[in-house]
Amino acid sequence: MTYTLVLLRHGESEWNAKNLFTGWVDVPLSEKGTAEARRGGELLKESGVTPDVVHTSLLRRAINTANLALDAADRHWIPVKRNWRLNERHYGDLQGKDKKQVRDQYGEEQFMLWRRSYDVPPPEIELGSEFSQDADVRYAGEPIPRAEALKQVLDRALPYWDGEIVPDLKAGKTVLVAAHGNSLRAIVKHLDGVDDETIAGLNIPTGIPLVYELDEETLQPTNPGGTYLDPEAAKDAIAAVANQGK
Amino acid sequence: MTYTLVLLRHGESEWNAKNLFTGWVDVPLSEKGTAEARRGGELLKESGVTPDVVHTSLLRRAINTANLALDAADRHWIPVKRNWRLNERHYGDLQGKDKKQVRDQYGEEQFMLWRRSYDVPPPEIELGSEFSQDADVRYAGEPIPRAEALKQVLDRALPYWDGEIVPDLKAGKTVLVAAHGNSLRAIVKHLDGVDDETIAGLNIPTGIPLVYELDEETLQPTNPGGTYLDPEAAKDAIAAVANQGK
Repeated sequence: MTYTLVLLRHGESEWNAKNLFTGWVDVPLSEKGTAEARRGGELLKESGVTPDVVHTSLLRRAINTANLALDAADRHWIPVKRNWRLNERHYGDLQGKDKKQVRDQYGEEQFMLWRRSYDVPPPEIELGSEFSQDADVRYAGEPIPRAEALKQVLDRALPYWDGEIVPDLKAGKTVLVAAHGNSLRAIVKHLDGVDDETIAGLNIPTGIPLVYELDEETLQPTNPGGTYLDPEAAKDAIAAVANQGK
Repeated sequence: MTYTLVLLRHGESEWNAKNLFTGWVDVPLSEKGTAEARRGGELLKESGVTPDVVHTSLLRRAINTANLALDAADRHWIPVKRNWRLNERHYGDLQGKDKKQVRDQYGEEQFMLWRRSYDVPPPEIELGSEFSQDADVRYAGEPIPRAEALKQVLDRALPYWDGEIVPDLKAGKTVLVAAHGNSLRAIVKHLDGVDDETIAGLNIPTGIPLVYELDEETLQPTNPGGTYLDPEAAKDAIAAVANQGK
């Protein structure tokens, strides 16, 4: 027997289109992102994948992606759990900055190091500054970061994986995790045992549910890498992201 | 010190416009209902009322009202609890039927008795019929009704009030309950001690948050009847409903 885990990356946000570093800044989905979320839910429905519980970050682009997808899948009524440990990578001082400006200011090498290295975080955000979350009540009392590389995302996501998601899986529930490019990459790295270099080149497309079947004893995927519910669209999206870097 | 409770009735659904008995049939919000939900959230934000936890029914018109209102109020990230005990009154065999047809078929007196009496339920729904929920997985294992008057709604809502909502209030949380005309009337009857006859004439407008301050010792309202966040709009809406019956 296997457990079923579904990963869903939120659709396009309003800052994607503007080419700004987002991180923990709580921007809404764009119209395109809203449509992507609904399509994700339709894919669940068409495939007969029925989440029993949903875990989201505390950011509205993931929360609303879950809301829209579950409504389209007729699973809007399932229990909901939310936690900051599923948030996007904290982009530190880069949050709210234009990506092109950062590249021009710091140079291509430093820019790519911050974007793609496993364990080099960007500069820490200044407390009290415009795009800092230190005064945000939703994080009150939590040990939130001021900048993260993917490694730090994995370190803070794992306690939530072990403490909240694994128990739901072991209870036999089909678990949907609606989150972000980097928090989902952290989970994928953990599940598939991806090494630190390879994970940098691994991209999860937005809005296409990625289904893992996990062995009930080891919690290892019986389908390593998972299975996209729309494999053609996923392949196209992954190729498009790969080409962006060229 | 008082505890703060906010009641929010869902906006117009697609069957309101069609004049059909809805009950537990899971119809979506209309465009107007979607706008009402957002407006409800804006009223929360303008008034500085900040829910710490939301309780909803298992029906999408209440769930999506909560989602839209909390997003508009920047409280989309709060914990969510859902339960069938907050569902609308089960309209039994009337579910899915045209209100005018039912009135013509059964006569005005019987029609008004089913709509407005405190304890006369409509005929039970046939199991397995089109608008029955007996095979709906979201209610599996639950002692769900086949027809209800307001009295039965109160009887099944009270255990949830006592067991889930009161503990949140006593923990000092501002509690939002996003639900339905009759499940909210049941709560209001309980809180304000409204008698069985008076409750029949009490209408809660859609989409306008109704705020109660509850004494911390007795849980009795210190503002009996509650306070609408948009009192003028509430008065107009209540007058409009009263005129519908004429």
